[in-house]
Amino acid sequence: MNASRKQSGKLLYAQSGGVTAVINATAAAVIETCRKHKVTAYAARNGILGALREDLIDTTREPPAAIRALKHTPGGAFGSCRVKLKSLEDDRARYERLIEVFRAHDIRWFLYNGGNDSADTALKLSKLGKAMGYDIRCIGVPKTVDNDLVVTDCCPGFGSVAKYTAVSLRECALDVQSMMDTSTKVFVMEVMGRHAGWIAASAGLAGEGRDDAPHIILFPELEFEEEKFLARVRETVERVGCCVVAASEGIRYADGRFVADAHAGTDAFGHTQLGGVAPALAGMVRDKLKLKTHWALPDYLQRSARHIASKTDLEQAIAVGRAAVELALAGENAVMSVIRRVSDSPYRWKIGTAPLDAIANREKKLPRSFITMDGYGITAAARRYLAPLIRGEAPPPFDRNGMPEYVALKNASVRRKLPAFDA
Amino acid sequence: MNASRKQSGKLLYAQSGGVTAVINATAAAVIETCRKHKVTAYAARNGILGALREDLIDTTREPPAAIRALKHTPGGAFGSCRVKLKSLEDDRARYERLIEVFRAHDIRWFLYNGGNDSADTALKLSKLGKAMGYDIRCIGVPKTVDNDLVVTDCCPGFGSVAKYTAVSLRECALDVQSMMDTSTKVFVMEVMGRHAGWIAASAGLAGEGRDDAPHIILFPELEFEEEKFLARVRETVERVGCCVVAASEGIRYADGRFVADAHAGTDAFGHTQLGGVAPALAGMVRDKLKLKTHWALPDYLQRSARHIASKTDLEQAIAVGRAAVELALAGENAVMSVIRRVSDSPYRWKIGTAPLDAIANREKKLPRSFITMDGYGITAAARRYLAPLIRGEAPPPFDRNGMPEYVALKNASVRRKLPAFDA
Repeated sequence: MNASRKQSGKLLYAQSGGVTAVINATAAAVIETCRKHKVTAYAARNGILGALREDLIDTTREPPAAIRALKHTPGGAFGSCRVKLKSLEDDRARYERLIEVFRAHDIRWFLYNGGNDSADTALKLSKLGKAMGYDIRCIGVPKTVDNDLVVTDCCPGFGSVAKYTAVSLRECALDVQSMMDTSTKVFVMEVMGRHAGWIAASAGLAGEGRDDAPHIILFPELEFEEEKFLARVRETVERVGCCVVAASEGIRYADGRFVADAHAGTDAFGHTQLGGVAPALAGMVRDKLKLKTHWALPDYLQRSARHIASKTDLEQAIAVGRAAVELALAGENAVMSVIRRVSDSPYRWKIGTAPLDAIANREKKLPRSFITMDGYGITAAARRYLAPLIRGEAPPPFDRNGMPEYVALKNASVRRKLPAFDA
Repeated sequence: MNASRKQSGKLLYAQSGGVTAVINATAAAVIETCRKHKVTAYAARNGILGALREDLIDTTREPPAAIRALKHTPGGAFGSCRVKLKSLEDDRARYERLIEVFRAHDIRWFLYNGGNDSADTALKLSKLGKAMGYDIRCIGVPKTVDNDLVVTDCCPGFGSVAKYTAVSLRECALDVQSMMDTSTKVFVMEVMGRHAGWIAASAGLAGEGRDDAPHIILFPELEFEEEKFLARVRETVERVGCCVVAASEGIRYADGRFVADAHAGTDAFGHTQLGGVAPALAGMVRDKLKLKTHWALPDYLQRSARHIASKTDLEQAIAVGRAAVELALAGENAVMSVIRRVSDSPYRWKIGTAPLDAIANREKKLPRSFITMDGYGITAAARRYLAPLIRGEAPPPFDRNGMPEYVALKNASVRRKLPAFDA
């Protein structure tokens, strides 16, 4: 591939699904690597919707300092969305529209930064491009706080939410322990991860000994047994004086119902009572064990907490972005840049490549070997895997008022060339 | 007071009520200042209960490095409690027991680190000491995340929760804005402060312009009007694309009921549904406006988040602890070491002294002049007051595994000399 060929097409970058504390670091790496190769990088506004609507952003209008600042700015700088394209047959018009938009703007490389759904979309697009005779290279770039992608050793975004979770849990456990003699005895912290217990497992890094918090972790991979759980809470309070619980939002009863949904109800006004695992568990403990409870549900705070991001996670987010551009420009297609673990201790990793069809639509759950026999804790194997991912701090710069200096891009639109499309 | 007199008695330090991210920094300053003056410092285990039970901790057994590490460790290192002593008449036996414990251990200085209740207890003790002919100096040391103490310009503990709140809100607002086109449009973050809206107000530091998050702040000082609130949410979503709300746990309807309590109910199992302002508001928005909502309730995470503490707050927590010892040793009695603001810009403060009877049992609410006319935001006056309190970062050291190095003290017990007492 010679230099003139490289510069003849443009690269389109899109973010997909829930954002993370470090997805913008991947974006920054993509843009900086494009600049290095003198390739114009566009970004799709609001993810794949922007590509469908021909709502494109010209990243060349951003100064280098703004792109650098993306590395410490959470959220999704160009917007993201939760739109999943169906099969080529069911969603043909949309896939064809994408190729049409690519053609109109001479987009020759498409980088899709997301999870297994996005890997599927990128894969389908690469096939359709071939079928429609349009030369497009589609590269997946991993991102998901849930850490549920197969093949890659871990997903950028996860390490930071894991660090937030472990640090926050240790901090609030110190709080609970200070007051347990006369106040809260049971504290429940709800964490994300509806289908996979990686984030719940990361809470386990907050402590090491048997009596360290979290005393109970509830994983979505295991059936929730109320009586057994309550017995363990009671026993822990009797032994330790308090019980700190980390619970995945996705735990279910034996019949498959989510605990959060089962305990949703209506309030005195007849309004919907929004569910939540933490309040459901805390209510159970209060009603059945008559113990004082408190609970926390950090929700988006956990996945946007750039201020306590993992340096390892940040470095990997940057590396997968850079590698994805290099793969694209080298002519690779239908692959994803992934993290390969070389060793646990010392922790070493490198960037690898995996075919999208090995990743698309699959889900990596927490292996049973990472969960203790009793179902309430993490094993040494889990610690070996998880510990390196939260290593290192990478705080954002703070301004003189004590607030992080997060950047807002100009996000200048590229002039439309096509008729509107109902995305 | 000569040197031999100083060394003849001991100083007892006790923590009171909810703990904070920096109360241990005050404890460290108290102990270090005692060491400087060669005064033995005891600490009461679990606050005033430890003093009543004669459950005392000998801090001289802790190495200097452990005491230094307290400055970056959240929670309450000796334990705290929520026990409020009543009037001298109603609780005479307990007050007398305290004097008896002081006498048994030659405790000549009592430092009580808490809010307005503790100021009241310290004041009563100083009076009783005099009446019982026992020479005891009682000094209050301010602490409360609620920032509701009068006289002192601010309370150590508040600046850090304010910083946590402003930073977290800005971060999750970036998350919401990234996704608002197809996902969550309304996000509600619940904050502490049941009676005073200082923490809610601090959320306002997350943004500056009219369209910056938080778009709505709900203060406990103002009556909650559901229709007006929903109209503002709708209008904000139409104008900005999303609406980020910071809500105090203590907001009430016109009839005085807490919004959280009014919306509590029972679930499908007939169990108590634990209240919460955030889910109640999110439920309202979903039912009435049919908008996708998310909500967060950080609970203890906000007051234990030492990792994002304010440096200003930390310095003030240390300064009030040091000053309290100096006041005690100088023979002052029934006073509190307080923060006095010298100027807003540049921000300058100094330590002052205030009589406990000017502080005990009073509560400082957010002034109406700090809330915008419409009741949903903070004014320039509020910003002038709040901004300096979150300035500066003071992260804890992290270990090589990426976790904060929080210390656990030995907390060696002092041998009891008195019969047991049912506290």
